[in-house]
Formats: sequence, C-alpha cells, structure tokens
Amino acid sequence: MSYISTAHLRFLLFEIHRVQDLFQYEFFGHLDEEQIQMMIDSAKALADRDMFPFFKEMDEKPVAYLGNGEVWTHPQLKTIIRNAAAQNWIGDAARFEHGGMQVPEMVHNTAQSIFIAANNSTQGYLGLTAGAARLITSFGTQALIDTYVPKMYNGEWQGTMALTEPQAGSSLTDIATSAAPTQDGYYKVRGQKIFISAGQHQACDNFVHLTLARIDGAPPGVKGISLFVIPKFRPEADGSLAYNDVFCAGDFQKLGQRAYATTHLVYGDQGDCRGWLLGEPHKGLTYMFQMMNEARIGVGLTAAATASAAYYASLQYASERPQGRPLNSKNPLQPPVPIIQHADVQRMLITQRAIVEGSISLAMECNKLGDLAHAGDGAAHRDQWLLLELLTPIMKTYASEQGNRATSLAIQVLGGYGYTVDFTAQQYYRDLRIMAIYEGTTGIQSLDLLGRKVGMDNGRAVQLLSQAILQTAAAADEYPVLKNCADALRRALQRTSEVLQHLSSFAKAGDIERYTSDATVFMEMTGYVVIGWQWLKMAVGAQQCLEKGDFSRQHKAFYSAKIHTAQFFFRYEMPHASACAHTLLQEGWLTDVEAGEEWWQ
Amino acid sequence: MSYISTAHLRFLLFEIHRVQDLFQYEFFGHLDEEQIQMMIDSAKALADRDMFPFFKEMDEKPVAYLGNGEVWTHPQLKTIIRNAAAQNWIGDAARFEHGGMQVPEMVHNTAQSIFIAANNSTQGYLGLTAGAARLITSFGTQALIDTYVPKMYNGEWQGTMALTEPQAGSSLTDIATSAAPTQDGYYKVRGQKIFISAGQHQACDNFVHLTLARIDGAPPGVKGISLFVIPKFRPEADGSLAYNDVFCAGDFQKLGQRAYATTHLVYGDQGDCRGWLLGEPHKGLTYMFQMMNEARIGVGLTAAATASAAYYASLQYASERPQGRPLNSKNPLQPPVPIIQHADVQRMLITQRAIVEGSISLAMECNKLGDLAHAGDGAAHRDQWLLLELLTPIMKTYASEQGNRATSLAIQVLGGYGYTVDFTAQQYYRDLRIMAIYEGTTGIQSLDLLGRKVGMDNGRAVQLLSQAILQTAAAADEYPVLKNCADALRRALQRTSEVLQHLSSFAKAGDIERYTSDATVFMEMTGYVVIGWQWLKMAVGAQQCLEKGDFSRQHKAFYSAKIHTAQFFFRYEMPHASACAHTLLQEGWLTDVEAGEEWWQ
Repeated sequence: MSYISTAHLRFLLFEIHRVQDLFQYEFFGHLDEEQIQMMIDSAKALADRDMFPFFKEMDEKPVAYLGNGEVWTHPQLKTIIRNAAAQNWIGDAARFEHGGMQVPEMVHNTAQSIFIAANNSTQGYLGLTAGAARLITSFGTQALIDTYVPKMYNGEWQGTMALTEPQAGSSLTDIATSAAPTQDGYYKVRGQKIFISAGQHQACDNFVHLTLARIDGAPPGVKGISLFVIPKFRPEADGSLAYNDVFCAGDFQKLGQRAYATTHLVYGDQGDCRGWLLGEPHKGLTYMFQMMNEARIGVGLTAAATASAAYYASLQYASERPQGRPLNSKNPLQPPVPIIQHADVQRMLITQRAIVEGSISLAMECNKLGDLAHAGDGAAHRDQWLLLELLTPIMKTYASEQGNRATSLAIQVLGGYGYTVDFTAQQYYRDLRIMAIYEGTTGIQSLDLLGRKVGMDNGRAVQLLSQAILQTAAAADEYPVLKNCADALRRALQRTSEVLQHLSSFAKAGDIERYTSDATVFMEMTGYVVIGWQWLKMAVGAQQCLEKGDFSRQHKAFYSAKIHTAQFFFRYEMPHASACAHTLLQEGWLTDVEAGEEWWQ
Repeated sequence: MSYISTAHLRFLLFEIHRVQDLFQYEFFGHLDEEQIQMMIDSAKALADRDMFPFFKEMDEKPVAYLGNGEVWTHPQLKTIIRNAAAQNWIGDAARFEHGGMQVPEMVHNTAQSIFIAANNSTQGYLGLTAGAARLITSFGTQALIDTYVPKMYNGEWQGTMALTEPQAGSSLTDIATSAAPTQDGYYKVRGQKIFISAGQHQACDNFVHLTLARIDGAPPGVKGISLFVIPKFRPEADGSLAYNDVFCAGDFQKLGQRAYATTHLVYGDQGDCRGWLLGEPHKGLTYMFQMMNEARIGVGLTAAATASAAYYASLQYASERPQGRPLNSKNPLQPPVPIIQHADVQRMLITQRAIVEGSISLAMECNKLGDLAHAGDGAAHRDQWLLLELLTPIMKTYASEQGNRATSLAIQVLGGYGYTVDFTAQQYYRDLRIMAIYEGTTGIQSLDLLGRKVGMDNGRAVQLLSQAILQTAAAADEYPVLKNCADALRRALQRTSEVLQHLSSFAKAGDIERYTSDATVFMEMTGYVVIGWQWLKMAVGAQQCLEKGDFSRQHKAFYSAKIHTAQFFFRYEMPHASACAHTLLQEGWLTDVEAGEEWWQ
C-alpha cells in the first residue's frame, strides 16, 4: 500500500541525516542499524494492517458528540491505539526508567510519519499522549510519573494539551482558567478550554489533561500561567478512579481530520475538579513550550506525511488513467496514454514530491538536532538547541503551507474525480488544511521566527544556519551537475541576509510593529531557502552514491530521481524566494494606509 | 448582508470599464445608467432574500440521489430559479426576439456575481440554462428555438452542457456517444455522460441536454463530433411530453458545491433516446466552444465572487473578534484589540481583496470586449474577439487558482474557528476548489493559452494586449503615486515577451511538447501581469477622481483603498511574475529525466 516511501525514509535516516552518528552516545549506544530497519518494517506493517484500510471510512463516520459528556469515535481507534502502544510506539523515545526504549526522535518520527501517511487523524492520539507523558517525566514528581505515565505509554490513558480558551484563542496572555490552592497538595480548578484534541473519546479509559491555568493571585499575562496535570478520573489512594469534574461539553465538527476528536472541556462545574501542579508555579508556559516545540515539528511532519499520502494517491491515478495523447503525435486512432506521460501532470507530481520529501528531510534535520542536543553536552549542545529553535517554526510552516498546495495538486491530477468523495484526494486536502493553524498559526510562527528566533543570542542561530547551508553548498561544488543549485542557494542565502539587515533597521529604531509586519513573507522566503538546503543535501548524498557506483542501498534510478527533484526545486520553487525578497526590500504599505470604515468596504 | 461589494461593482461598471460606452450601439441603445443601477439593486435584493440565507443550509443538506433516476435537491432551489427567472435573470442578455432584454454581458454578469457570492452552488443552474439557450438561439432552427427557449428562460426547463464521458475525461477526441440518423429528422442516441451539472433535480420540470455525440460514420477525433439537443422529456406534436430515455444513473458526491447536482446520464438504454442536431454535422465542438468560452469566464467569475464572499466573512470576523494586543504595547492589563488591527491579518485580508477585485475587474474587461464585439463590426470587432480569446483562459485560471489561495486565507483569518463547520469559511474553500477543474483544468487552459491563443493571427492577440497594457501604464505615468506600479508593469510585460521569444524557439523547431511543457508556469506569470494591468487601470480611475475631488459616486476613502490595494498588488504579488520568468528562461528538467519505474517511487 503506497502512501509513503520507506525507501526515502531510509535514505534520509541512513544516508543523509545519518542516525548512525547517534550510536556513539551513551544514551543511544544500545541501538544499531539493523534494529532500526526492523522498527521501520514493523511500523509499516502495523500501518498497513490497522491504519490505512480505515482511513477513508473513519472520515465518513466521523467523531460525534453523544451528549452527557460522551464522544463517539470509530471502534478501530481503540485497536490502533492499543496495538501501537503494544509495539511501544507511544513511549519508544522515553528513557528506559520510564518504560521507553531510548529510541531517537529521528526514528520515532520516522515511524510516526508512516502512521500519519496511513491515517493522519489517528496518529494525533498517539503523539499527544507521548508529548503529555514526556512533559510529566520532564517536570513532574516521581509520584506523578508513577501515577500517570505507565498507563499513558500502554495506551490505556490519553494525554492532551489544554491551552486554548474561547475568549483568548492564540493569546495565551488572556488565559483565565483558575487554580485555587488547597491544603491537600492539589488545586481546585475552574475554567473552559476549547479545541482540545483527543479530549474525550471511546478508545481510552481516562484522560490526562496537561492544562494551563492561573493560580489565584498570580501575576497578569503569561508570567502568571502554571501547568497542571488534570485527569478526567483521579486515582484515589485505594487505586480506584473517581470522577474529577472535567466535563466534555461538545465536539467541534471540522472540515477535515474528522476522526480526530476536537473537544470543549469544562473544568470544575461542580466545584470538584482537582489539578496537580507540574513543576514550579508561574512557569507553565515555559514547560508547555517543550511539548509545543515538539508538537510543532509534529504538526509539520503531519502536513508532510499527509501530503505524501496524497502524492501517492495521485501518482497511482496518473499511472493508471489513460487520457489524451502526446502533443507531438495527436492521432485519434492511437489509443490514449496514461496521463502521467503529460508534461503538466509530471510537473504537478514532482512539485508534490519536492514539497513532501523536502519537508520530511527538514523534520529529520530538526529531530537529529534534538537527539544530539539530548545525548550530548557542551557548546555543541547549546548550538544544536539554538539551530533547532530557529528551524522549528520554519519546518512547521513550510510543510503546512506548501502541503496545502501539494494536496491541491493531488486533486488536480485526478481532475473531476479528485473533487468527488469517491477518491481520497479531497480528504487529504481537507485534513491538511488545519496544520497551518494547529500549535500556532502561520502568522504566529512567523512572528516567532522574525521576532524571537532570529535575534536569539545576538543572531547566533542565523549564523549557525548560514554555516550549515554554506557547508552543503561547498560539498555540492564538487559535482558539476549540482553547481548551479549550489550557486542559487548561496545567492538566496545572501538575499536573506540583505533582507534581515534591511528589516533590522526598523527593530533598532524600536518599531517592532513595522519590523514584523511582513514576518509571514519573510517566513515564506526562509522556507524556500531552508528546503533548498535540504534538497541540495539530498542531491549531494545521491550524487556521491552515483559517482561511487554504490547501489547497495538504493537503485541507481532512485538517486537520479533525487538529483532531478533537487534541480526541479531550484528551478521552479527557489525563484519565489527572490520574489519575497523583492517584496521585503520595498517600502511598506501599512504605514501609508488611511484607516477608516470605508477602507474595508 | 455582506458577501460582495456592490460599490466595487458599480465602480467597475461605470467608472473603469464604462458600460455607458455601449449605449451608443443600436443593440444596447435602449439602456441608460439609471436602469442598470436599478438592475443591480434588484439583483442584490433577490440574492439577500432568496439566496444568501440558504447558503449554509443547502451545503448541510446536499443533493442526494434517490434511485430510479431521481435526484433530491433543497426545496429552496425551485424558489431561487423561478424568482430569478421571473426577474429575467436567465434570459436578460438575449435578444428581444428571443424574450430577452438585450442587457450587456457586463451587466448580466454583474448580477450573476452577486448571486454567486450569495450562493455559488445555485447560480450554476441559472448560468447553465442561459448558456444552453443561447447555443440554441445561435445555431438552432426556429422550431428548436420555439420549442425550448421560452421554457428555459422562464426557469421551467433546465439547460445543461453534456460533454464529458467516463472513458474520455478532458479528451473530447475520444467521445463515443453515438447518434444514428433516422428518416424523421432526429437521431437515435446512445451513450453515457458524467459530471453533468444540473443534469437532474427537483426544481425544473424538464432538462435540455446540449450533448456532444458522434454521428455514425463520422470522422475520428474532434472533427467528427456533432452537437445535439436532447431533452429528458420530448415535446410531442400534441403538446404533451414523452419520456426520451435519458436516465439519471447517479449523482456524484463532492467536496463542495454540494447543492449543485453533478449527474451521471445514460442515453438510450431502452433504445428510444432522440436527439436533434444543432447546426451542421461535425461542427459540434466549434459550437460548443461558444458556450464553453462564456462558461470559462463564468467559472472564473464564480471563483472570484465565491472568494469575495469568503473575504467578507473573514473581514467581519476580523472586525469583531478581540484577540491579542499591538506588538508595540503588549500590556496584559489592556483589553485585547480586534484582530483586524494585527498587521498579518490585514495582509491576509488585503491579499484576498486584491485577488477578488482584480479578478472581477478582468471578468468585466472580458465581458465588455464580448459586448463590443457583439454590438459592433469591422476591424475593431475582430480585434475585440481576438483579445477576448486570449484573456479568457487567463481570467478563468487566475481567478480559480488564486481564488483557492484567497479562501484559504479566509480560513486562516478565523484560525481554529475557520476550520469548524460552524463558520462558512471552510465551505467557500471547498466550493471554490472545483473552479480550476470545471470547463477545462488549469493545465488545459494553459495549453490553450500558450499552444493556441498566443499564436493566433501571427500573435495579433498578444500584440493587442501589450498595447492595452502600455496604454494603461502611460495613463498611470501622469500620477507620481502610480509611477512605480506603471514601471513594474512595463518591466513584467517586457519579461513576458522575452519568455515568449525564448519558448517560441522550441515551437519553431517543431518541438511542441517542449514548447508547452511549462505552459502552466507561463499561465501563472501572465495572470500576474494581466491582473496587475487591471489594478493599475482601477488605480488610474481612482486617482483621477481623487485629483478632481469628484466624490459624486464614491467616498474618498473608497478611492484611496483602490490605490493602496493596487500598490499592495505590485509590491506583494507582481514579483512572483519575475520568479515565473526566471523558471521559464532556464533550461528544462523534462528532457533530462531518466524515465523508469523507480523514478516515481
């Protein structure tokens, strides 16, 4: 079943981003390549059996609110969660002491990308539990860890992250959920949260909501937000479970990801909702950002892997559907050819491929940085975190925004059929559309990039990225076939720094509003540059194998395809980075605008 | 109810594209400005009352196949069709002798754009009937006209265009529906058609299918295709209606436009389907292209007006939703501001606006050319047709492709709420997505543009377009505030001709495959140039009023907004034309590709 290329995943893991480099660290010292290969095989087999065959049906029979706090979910969801947990795909990356296998994020996310491509809505349940459990192990007391984490890793209990409130949306400053301390070690919580993914469903027995709330008397704004563990059913001293007054008041019906419950939670309506503080008071947002940063990569990867599945769906259709004839020989007496032979269909396919494979490569670059930072220490450690911080919003945004375009192209390859519900192309298009909104919209990611990340440590992260890009370009210079791409990448990088210099004059003058007003255009430009870097990296790796004649891992045509796709990216996509630079280097429109009611009419 | 700006429509009609110019022609001599203003008012009132309030509900209760050839449609559909027909909105553009009012297409489509913005799925029923009736009046005998057209214009009978067949798709060469001549003046028809919009529903009593079929013994390919009038119920000599063996075998369930029936028709399953030849044998495709060309503008306009409605939905949300604070004063104790005050939200709104209003302006440019060509004669007449032929695929494609982006931005403005079915943003996103497929996909429009239109009459159409663009740029030179835009437009035009020169070397060498391989990128580039031209035209008109201080028609802020949006377009959108040129001027990837099974894996 074709929804993702495991060959590409292996190419990235072993030939481009070299997971093998991690084995030298004590934390990952128990692993070898063969084990990882087997893990990928078993993830694919699981996805083939439990996930992909239910992908369409779970959309057609979506999550439904049943009233009385209950949410109906497809029965297969339970099978998926329990079987994935049985293979340790929720807790695999955790420490041994927490029940994990100390698997690198690179590998964990490779498996998750297979699950996503097979059935994007259901992988979220696994990913959320893993992230929530990791927050508890990172910042929780041993008691909290013992109480919650094992049940989460075995798939019996669902973890969630509960940030958004109706009146606040993306503005976490305005979080109003309150937590009143008691003498008994817990807080009494009251408030409402919306858009809580996996907040209630039929596949798990309990729900562990990692919830942002404000301790009574806390400072205003984000500096007064704390993080709580709030279960739906609280474990009592005798081992029984008591209802903890977390009520699911509804489920949002959505454009896509219709098998993924998106709930409205009410805490403490009966005055009996207890929350346990995680870590220290008022540091909730900092803690949550650990999960959030991982979740942002996760959302980007979800976009990329969903677009992968759409790509393979459209590739299959294009290979099988006969229609039309080559333009050079339009004889109606000849039989029609498969549409994949038409240039425009090939362009639509290779565009999807460039977006999908480039995004997955960037996700793996990020995960490797995380793994290295996690396993190592010293100065390199700090630099790895910095670079990861810089790349995270770019990864999330490029994959989401360009993923929308990719799935739209998948529909287009199928033509009229692509618009019907008989085919999955439209489902991928709907499913993917949320990714530019989850975990911080594109606008927020762009503010994060330009407003925070670019300036961190006096621009150290940007400097590290530039070095990495130039290093790849230098490696590409060795190969005449890649020279043009290397030059184009260097030019694009140079333009990026011109833009930054131009914009920073506004920041220096204290006009942060103007500095960031086109942050989204800056983000778009940066996306092309960073994905161009990934493509050049892949092309260099492929060209090395082609020149050595080393086809022990992949066919020759596989490597040629990487070169071609890289060249395609530089020819068709990279020029738009220049267009963005052109926009950014002009004077702004915003300052000229005459506000007024009529302006908008 | 805000879903389209009638102020913008009036601005285009009377100040930019000047419908008044038509009144000097005999065909339109009965009209005056006041009448047209009243027509717009009455169209808006009709849309407000009958269409917009049902937009969401008709999506939630979509068309359904009931079996036995019957298709359920929302009861409001009948009200809409009958009331629109009663105001003559189906036949308004027809000649007096056919029951019409000889209303210019400019005005007809202005009204239709209001209907589309109010309820895009249902306007299609009106538009199809109008187009089908016009085909009959253009090429049919008086008997055919008398039999069908009055019932179509009064909304009792539905017209359709039946081209697509399951095995042929976009390849009309492969049409297989057969028509066997009889002694009785009709043909016996057998075959199947799919994706037939409005092919069966509950709002009309009869269906008049303008159907492409092949007369027995006809030449192969498109030269052997004829056009037939094939009713579902044929009028007998005694005035009664007899079932004509056109069976609706199903309705396609779609991503969007769910109130618009998309049917599967089976002709002659019982051997008793009669068709009446329209015009001469084997000329069916030529005739159909009259309707098709109008339909292409219609689809483009549907995209633009649907995006308009999405824009106003997101504008309203952005004006009302408080969230976050200005970046220059992030005090959590201050109340949040409406999100329209955030720069990125403004960027998303003005981008939508630039796409919507630019597209509607181009549609009106096209309609005026059609009106002039229709009313006048001589050399100018021929040039008007030529330019219209060139602009038609561009109008259709720009509005469809960029419309997808615009509706996606509308979702983004609403954030998480935009992804829920509680809001209409997601419905617009789904509805609009078909427009790049209807009536020839973007790939086919692009082949039409580069492969046919550009070369017509030795490039005369391109020459005419260039002249028109340079004329607008020259007018803009008068105003310092528009000088930069005028220069940018001239540069983009110059780049376009460099690209054409580069590509034409392939055509001259006979390699039509290579010449057209990047037709879609050429289309994208041309779209920016042509919409840039429209924006400059609007800006010149607005600036003239600002300088004259003539605010008799619009407020000052209205005109300022046009200038700003034009500047926005040139700053944010036009640079991407250069990016496309950059792509097109490089050597191709297609020729380098090593084909092979693995290539696609």
